[in-house]
Amino acid sequence: MLLKELREEVYRMNMELPKNNLVVMTSGNVSGKDPHTNYVVIKPSGVKYEDLSPEKMVIVDLEGNVVEGDLKPSVDTLSHLVVYRNRKDIGGIVHTHSPYATAFALLGKPIPVYLTSHADYFGEEIPIGRYASPLPLEDVGNALLEVINKDDRPSWVKKHSPFVPVVLLKNHGVFTFGKTPTEALKYAVMIEEIAKTCYLALSLGKPEPLPDIEIEKWYTRFHEIYGQK
Amino acid sequence: MLLKELREEVYRMNMELPKNNLVVMTSGNVSGKDPHTNYVVIKPSGVKYEDLSPEKMVIVDLEGNVVEGDLKPSVDTLSHLVVYRNRKDIGGIVHTHSPYATAFALLGKPIPVYLTSHADYFGEEIPIGRYASPLPLEDVGNALLEVINKDDRPSWVKKHSPFVPVVLLKNHGVFTFGKTPTEALKYAVMIEEIAKTCYLALSLGKPEPLPDIEIEKWYTRFHEIYGQK
Amino acid sequence: MLLKELREEVYRMNMELPKNNLVVMTSGNVSGKDPHTNYVVIKPSGVKYEDLSPEKMVIVDLEGNVVEGDLKPSVDTLSHLVVYRNRKDIGGIVHTHSPYATAFALLGKPIPVYLTSHADYFGEEIPIGRYASPLPLEDVGNALLEVINKDDRPSWVKKHSPFVPVVLLKNHGVFTFGKTPTEALKYAVMIEEIAKTCYLALSLGKPEPLPDIEIEKWYTRFHEIYGQK
Amino acid sequence: MLLKELREEVYRMNMELPKNNLVVMTSGNVSGKDPHTNYVVIKPSGVKYEDLSPEKMVIVDLEGNVVEGDLKPSVDTLSHLVVYRNRKDIGGIVHTHSPYATAFALLGKPIPVYLTSHADYFGEEIPIGRYASPLPLEDVGNALLEVINKDDRPSWVKKHSPFVPVVLLKNHGVFTFGKTPTEALKYAVMIEEIAKTCYLALSLGKPEPLPDIEIEKWYTRFHEIYGQK
Repeated sequence: MLLKELREEVYRMNMELPKNNLVVMTSGNVSGKDPHTNYVVIKPSGVKYEDLSPEKMVIVDLEGNVVEGDLKPSVDTLSHLVVYRNRKDIGGIVHTHSPYATAFALLGKPIPVYLTSHADYFGEEIPIGRYASPLPLEDVGNALLEVINKDDRPSWVKKHSPFVPVVLLKNHGVFTFGKTPTEALKYAVMIEEIAKTCYLALSLGKPEPLPDIEIEKWYTRFHEIYGQK
Repeated sequence: MLLKELREEVYRMNMELPKNNLVVMTSGNVSGKDPHTNYVVIKPSGVKYEDLSPEKMVIVDLEGNVVEGDLKPSVDTLSHLVVYRNRKDIGGIVHTHSPYATAFALLGKPIPVYLTSHADYFGEEIPIGRYASPLPLEDVGNALLEVINKDDRPSWVKKHSPFVPVVLLKNHGVFTFGKTPTEALKYAVMIEEIAKTCYLALSLGKPEPLPDIEIEKWYTRFHEIYGQK
Repeated sequence: MLLKELREEVYRMNMELPKNNLVVMTSGNVSGKDPHTNYVVIKPSGVKYEDLSPEKMVIVDLEGNVVEGDLKPSVDTLSHLVVYRNRKDIGGIVHTHSPYATAFALLGKPIPVYLTSHADYFGEEIPIGRYASPLPLEDVGNALLEVINKDDRPSWVKKHSPFVPVVLLKNHGVFTFGKTPTEALKYAVMIEEIAKTCYLALSLGKPEPLPDIEIEKWYTRFHEIYGQK
Repeated sequence: MLLKELREEVYRMNMELPKNNLVVMTSGNVSGKDPHTNYVVIKPSGVKYEDLSPEKMVIVDLEGNVVEGDLKPSVDTLSHLVVYRNRKDIGGIVHTHSPYATAFALLGKPIPVYLTSHADYFGEEIPIGRYASPLPLEDVGNALLEVINKDDRPSWVKKHSPFVPVVLLKNHGVFTFGKTPTEALKYAVMIEEIAKTCYLALSLGKPEPLPDIEIEKWYTRFHEIYGQK
């Protein structure tokens, strides 16, 4: 069986979705790309989380051909592949419709950096991607790339993060990107928590975004000091 | 013991209600109809979910006579039967008062297709059924049928779905319909998630519904490609 | 050990509070009165739910003297006793600060019968009790009684329910009353679910209460047909 | 291994954070100070809660030097130390970004004593600390101290509580302080529940704060009678 470790990781990160209340039923999916073979491991389509196992993950190549697996891959596979084809540095993608972040996506409302925890993890406004259609088939992937590749990002963020880690797609939901599936999952959890807190504050008053100079300090501290490395 | 498999399925789908946070206490119920005997398997009245078992499900005929079972069937049994009598193609019904969807029901506010996940599963606005009374006894069932059978549905939906799968009954709650109890349960989970996200967006701004041409694309893709078949 | 069965029931109903997300930490309490001895079984003060057991419940007489038990009874014991002394027909009391119902209590806003599930269980508006002080010591109990005993209740409700089953005490929280602790607990769960749904609807629009004639029908059906008896 | 009991307590209180839904991922932290050695036990940086154990807690001295432990201490360690250095009577600190309380922090909106449970536990308005920067490194700790040490507190509160137990730091989150980590944790749970109920009421109407004389009565009763002592 190919890519045993990546299968395990993609499986575990898929299981984190219901555990963190980011999905219901079979919605949502996580994939990971192997940098050597360029194969992508992804959740099978429409299978309940409790029935998943590492063996049920599907392996496809960048063209979408199934390389290994008895099940059909996620219906969103092509959107993942379009991103992987164009960004060699992205190794993990998570897609959810987690309610608070998706409410911002639905409204087409970016999330400014109101919170220090937002500054810590992301260091920039969470952007909205344009509405994308299921046809042409590559439209969702292209809409993601337009945001992922955008150039007008703060300098402090570019230093640590070569691509935009979270895109809220208009009327749709949340996509997060990382060097690994584990990193992308972390962003999917954090953006829902941040969106929830911002929702609560926005429905009660007018929060003030942090100034750039402070955002830079939090982001830099977090990316240079936090964790065990 | 009659209808062993359907009993199991109706039992399991009833247990999904508390697991998915759609009910409290003994509220809510799931039933399923056997296409051969026309018998209906339904939850007993007022029994706690943790005390249910496949054996405790009650079997009634379409007139409401208990065919097998020591317990009284759900107080809502007749509403289910009125639907089953009139729609041979409905094989499963779920009823809940899940809070977000019921809030729309209470307000008499249909849920337009704001979200791509809504377009995927339902492909049309979630309609409101008129207020229905517990007396005459068939009023709830009749109010459901008025919506289930409505004719002015989008063509793309009619192709895959002969009846309206979700009805929000005014001041009351949520009823979902499927070819099987499993299908009806899926709709009950999805409508609560969609209602929650729409609630959040509506309380913060003015979301824009998707245009028909896009709804059709999402719905068709989902109904023709999604899942393992 | 006295009152073994009632101890068990009071213990189990206390444990239902965290299970149904009605309390945090040590807040909330359930008591039950034995109709033969007039002894009251109640939760000990400030003990975490996970550390409770039937043996740790405290038994007091109607004057508040500890009859059996090594722990101090709930700080709210006197409020329960004032109610038990004055209503022989009340055998169980639950007190919580469950957030949605307490939000209505805080605002001094009664909950009209908007929902059929509200009509089913309660058949009347959920009333607000006046603000009550911890001193004089009997003030909370007296404020509860003023509402419990109120006379201007709908005739259909009085037929089945000799006392008001739920009181939202101004700026304070939720008190529910039943013939048994099990019945009072059921009301505590239902009122939070109803308050949540009403909150969601009220924050999005103007729900319309049900007309009296319909409330009566739901209530009567539920109290004469529902459950296994 | 040093400070076995305090390690256990700090570990257990850290584990209460996800259990009480106050944190996601690795966010949040609890520390405790040993009064004899002045050593501080704190959560390691960026380690998932499910991977924690008493042995993985890190022990630092008041200057921040690691005394025992293989892992890096929390990135917030210095903020804890600044508080411990200046308040000998504080023995436990909890930091979270729990959503409801953090929404008030984000808005810079103190929480008046609307609820009797608020009066019970805290007896005073929950104050907002000024925005504090991650650089200079001691700014967060200093901002906390400015509030912890504030003098204009009600007399009844000062009698039992020498320092302000909860500070909502502007745009940031929640910090709570106790004589022990267990006490600080209790405040972190209670403030989130209180903030949630106040949020719900404020988004639906205009709650009225309790008068001082009533706050004093609730607070005094709770601090002199509640619990098992």
